[in-house]
Amino acid sequence: MEERSAFSAENCSVARTLAVVGEKWTLLVLREAFYGVRRFAEFQVNLGLARNLLGARLRTLVAEGVLERATYREPGARGRQEYRLTEKGRELFPALVALLQWGDKHLADAAGPAVVVRHDDCEQPVHAVLECAAGHRSLNARDTHPTPGPGARPAHAH
Amino acid sequence: MEERSAFSAENCSVARTLAVVGEKWTLLVLREAFYGVRRFAEFQVNLGLARNLLGARLRTLVAEGVLERATYREPGARGRQEYRLTEKGRELFPALVALLQWGDKHLADAAGPAVVVRHDDCEQPVHAVLECAAGHRSLNARDTHPTPGPGARPAHAH
Repeated sequence: MEERSAFSAENCSVARTLAVVGEKWTLLVLREAFYGVRRFAEFQVNLGLARNLLGARLRTLVAEGVLERATYREPGARGRQEYRLTEKGRELFPALVALLQWGDKHLADAAGPAVVVRHDDCEQPVHAVLECAAGHRSLNARDTHPTPGPGARPAHAH
Repeated sequence: MEERSAFSAENCSVARTLAVVGEKWTLLVLREAFYGVRRFAEFQVNLGLARNLLGARLRTLVAEGVLERATYREPGARGRQEYRLTEKGRELFPALVALLQWGDKHLADAAGPAVVVRHDDCEQPVHAVLECAAGHRSLNARDTHPTPGPGARPAHAH
């Protein structure tokens, strides 16, 4: 492994991802979207977030292509706006599940987790795990090391 | 699946986890810790964060048991403080990897990712994936549904 200081963190994908979703309310909006919420009013009630703040979070997520606005029209009713996860947005699900399971282990009520994410086919709980491209499974942080990728930049001198 | 509105989000583990780590700088401090950074000055240079803000983030992470302070003493030198990941902290690694891989796919430079996390044993890249307790693998958001867990609370009327 190269020394950490040998390559720069400025184009790290964690930092860029957090620039899109690295804010408590944004991730909670996504949580609601994964739980099936689509309408502004329902996001607002579930999150208890002011309209202007919720609107700003939703606009950011639409601008980043994580959510898309669509008009939903029931027969005879006027159309209404919905916010739906895009494929790009759905790909954030492993990160949400990983955050959920950490909280379930360390921060849940004595009664247990409030929510259990289950596999549609077998109803078993779903977990985020680490595996490598060679198929080695159940890895943890101690089994891994970071290396400079193809887009690594030299570190600033310090 | 029960209606989303049938159970409350107020004790959701995502929300509680974000109360600990749901802030851009906190997750970037953890990123540095996973990359092997331990000293205040090194966190500061790598992140470009003001001393008072970095100090506040580190104190929060120590108070939450995610990092621990330890005194490291080289022979003949005076002791210096280090911040080390606890076991609880290391368990956040799947969430960091999941955020990293999403950014690598959607936000990386044309040249590719800045960092590749590799398995120590085989040097292959490591990914976060979802699997269920019955062993079904490579699940995605569409394969799952949330259900009320043992700690679910009734929703507020709305």
